[in-house]
Amino acid sequence: MDEDQPKSLTPTNGAVPKAVVSRLSLYLRELQHLVQSGHETTSSTQLGTVLGFTDAQVRKDLAYFGQFGYPGIGYRCEELIAAIKQILGTDRSWPVALIGLGNLGRALLRYRGFGRQGFCVVAAFDVDPSIVGQSIEEIPVYHIDQLAEIIDKSQIRLAIIAVPSPEAQGAATLLAKAGIEGILNFAPVTITLPETVKRVEVDLAIELEQLSFAVVNRSEKT
Amino acid sequence: MDEDQPKSLTPTNGAVPKAVVSRLSLYLRELQHLVQSGHETTSSTQLGTVLGFTDAQVRKDLAYFGQFGYPGIGYRCEELIAAIKQILGTDRSWPVALIGLGNLGRALLRYRGFGRQGFCVVAAFDVDPSIVGQSIEEIPVYHIDQLAEIIDKSQIRLAIIAVPSPEAQGAATLLAKAGIEGILNFAPVTITLPETVKRVEVDLAIELEQLSFAVVNRSEKT
Repeated sequence: MDEDQPKSLTPTNGAVPKAVVSRLSLYLRELQHLVQSGHETTSSTQLGTVLGFTDAQVRKDLAYFGQFGYPGIGYRCEELIAAIKQILGTDRSWPVALIGLGNLGRALLRYRGFGRQGFCVVAAFDVDPSIVGQSIEEIPVYHIDQLAEIIDKSQIRLAIIAVPSPEAQGAATLLAKAGIEGILNFAPVTITLPETVKRVEVDLAIELEQLSFAVVNRSEKT
Repeated sequence: MDEDQPKSLTPTNGAVPKAVVSRLSLYLRELQHLVQSGHETTSSTQLGTVLGFTDAQVRKDLAYFGQFGYPGIGYRCEELIAAIKQILGTDRSWPVALIGLGNLGRALLRYRGFGRQGFCVVAAFDVDPSIVGQSIEEIPVYHIDQLAEIIDKSQIRLAIIAVPSPEAQGAATLLAKAGIEGILNFAPVTITLPETVKRVEVDLAIELEQLSFAVVNRSEKT
């Protein structure tokens, strides 16, 4: 690593607050937009303004992972993008398994945003005999009984659960047994997993509840 | 309000951390599951265990909004559900507008989880002449040019943006002009809104990045 490179990419104290990691993804997204529109450098003020954070917040968040700015220049976009990708683990391609091909599952299968950040759904699983054995969007659909075999063969480490709530725990248990390391769960139910399996939960109704809370509290204050 | 009721539902200091509001939604979801499985009361320990939080965390979160427990009883599920719904603003029904009927928009239109929490998509908007004027899942599809008229007529306060990124800011601006009070944005781009319009953003690729971060940091520590 030459002297021009950031000094450290791993946080010194181990635990980074979740909110910081979320903002890191937003910085990455914004930096990618900046590069697309021809910018080579940026500043904590520019990044913060677009995203609605203070420049101090941007600097403090990035400081968890190293020293990325240059005096008189600011941040070099491409370099900061590479550093954040390394931190988030998206400097590589991740094959992903998708469990459940209902409406949401099919929409996720077609979602192009995953591929742009290095996530590639390579196998889908369901129990519906009318789709098992077929391909949807060129992705093979397997029976859930083949989960362990395919995950092992395709070296899949991440999975997305998009099955109805009553089936979510069963799917999660199968995935954990098959050696999956991280699960993105869209079923609106809390799943129990071994501590070694990481999880992120997205409950779409909860996102709307967060919005109604914000609106109601705004309305009642004004 | 009789004396058995919680004393306060509005936080004393105004600002409640976002993470607390998110956990409130999880408590609500879990309480609803408990009632479905026949429970009348619960405790901070039971709620916390299922969700992976400490009992102290549960009590501290709820204390932002009032005093809900009873000595020797714990929480009365139905009463706490009603209180949390009032706090989150889901003690009423919210008509919702959906902008964009691509794959994700259509999946959201069919998503039953919204209805269960009181959110009802009553109008969808697109520009595609093959669907404008039709109904999808019994929801009328209007041209985006009719946005202001329909939002006013149907007294819609919340909207979901599910259009491609390049169209998201335009849709957001139209919604703000039409008097929408809150926007749930699924387009992976930061939108600028007047301060009076609340927003929640869900970037599906960012959710996967949070997962890869967790997996990579776990792997590299073990």
